[in-house]
Amino acid sequence: MAVPEKGVKLLDFWMSPFGQRCRIALAEKEVEYEYKEEDLSKKSDLLLKSNPVHKKIPVLIHDGKSICESLIIVEYIDEVFPGKTNILPSDPYARSHARFWADFVDKKVYDCGSKLFKSKSEALEELNKEFICILKTLETELGEKKYFGDDAFGLVDIAFAPFTSWFYTFEALGLSVEKECPKLAAWGNRIMERESVAKSLHEPTKIYDLFCELRKKFVDA
Amino acid sequence: MAVPEKGVKLLDFWMSPFGQRCRIALAEKEVEYEYKEEDLSKKSDLLLKSNPVHKKIPVLIHDGKSICESLIIVEYIDEVFPGKTNILPSDPYARSHARFWADFVDKKVYDCGSKLFKSKSEALEELNKEFICILKTLETELGEKKYFGDDAFGLVDIAFAPFTSWFYTFEALGLSVEKECPKLAAWGNRIMERESVAKSLHEPTKIYDLFCELRKKFVDA
Repeated sequence: MAVPEKGVKLLDFWMSPFGQRCRIALAEKEVEYEYKEEDLSKKSDLLLKSNPVHKKIPVLIHDGKSICESLIIVEYIDEVFPGKTNILPSDPYARSHARFWADFVDKKVYDCGSKLFKSKSEALEELNKEFICILKTLETELGEKKYFGDDAFGLVDIAFAPFTSWFYTFEALGLSVEKECPKLAAWGNRIMERESVAKSLHEPTKIYDLFCELRKKFVDA
Repeated sequence: MAVPEKGVKLLDFWMSPFGQRCRIALAEKEVEYEYKEEDLSKKSDLLLKSNPVHKKIPVLIHDGKSICESLIIVEYIDEVFPGKTNILPSDPYARSHARFWADFVDKKVYDCGSKLFKSKSEALEELNKEFICILKTLETELGEKKYFGDDAFGLVDIAFAPFTSWFYTFEALGLSVEKECPKLAAWGNRIMERESVAKSLHEPTKIYDLFCELRKKFVDA
């Protein structure tokens, strides 16, 4: 998937948790890059050409080659740009462990979380229960550690970080992460102290406003 | 996820395409291991203890540590056991490219393929079209190459190989892979020449028999 571009470019959409993962990883590695916001209702030729299979953001373009799918992009960033931080640990078992939990976030958190965003009020109670169960599983994995990668901020932290800005919206839906999963909520505050995270995420209220708008349009219409 | 086991052990179920991936990877690396067939209707304590999150096979247990999720297991095998073969290429872009296509197989082939297995006759035509489209995308990626990894048999070959033994059953459902995707069918024959693949897969007729049995029980009941 070759595209005529030099340097590093990220095709993204501001509220995408998948795009935010890439932004955090690039910031951790202190990589300079060009950010290109996509209009998802009118995708650019560059996006369609660089991700012809899924036609989705985020896409990282590096020296004319495109890399797709957020966790694959984050691993690529880790392998290509040395920087101060290692996103994946060097021990193969620890790597597989990190990949397992990042995959868990992909398979469980996004699916259930976005269902919560779109669900009719009568389905909320059941979905809330399911989502709390997912969050509690993550909290058990976090335990007393500073980060999911222990003392090192790593792949799982990056995979889950974008969803912390959804917590505020979940409160409006009757799910208090602070009450149900206090350690996870504290981790969410802790990672915001990192510049890479703080500058890649958006105000939780902005997510909430968009949520209300989408809800009016699609759920309560 | 520590379990009191030494050496290498694979918890698996004979017809699982995900388990077969691990068997192929272990065979490519010439790793000796203990195979433990699981009864999925009565999962062993070892399985529940070593994959408490998903409670699914395959699980690779190596020196008392368990690794879950087939593609993560295959990468682990590649990183830990040197062997003659490298499953992932050393170049980071080529690695991300291989990961992208392995992920495509995970997201598209299994979901749509297993829907085909379970669908009522009236839904078959639509599903066949969708599945052919997925296979054609893979065939375009394969092109004139010997393997998905070019001259090297690699991650994407391992990810997709188990599904070749479903092709025979697809014929019964009105989908001829040979006719629709001749290059992919030829690749399917080519990989069977590798001992690692031949000994890890089962006779396509065995899959077909099981398919008929399950169909009688769940679809046509």
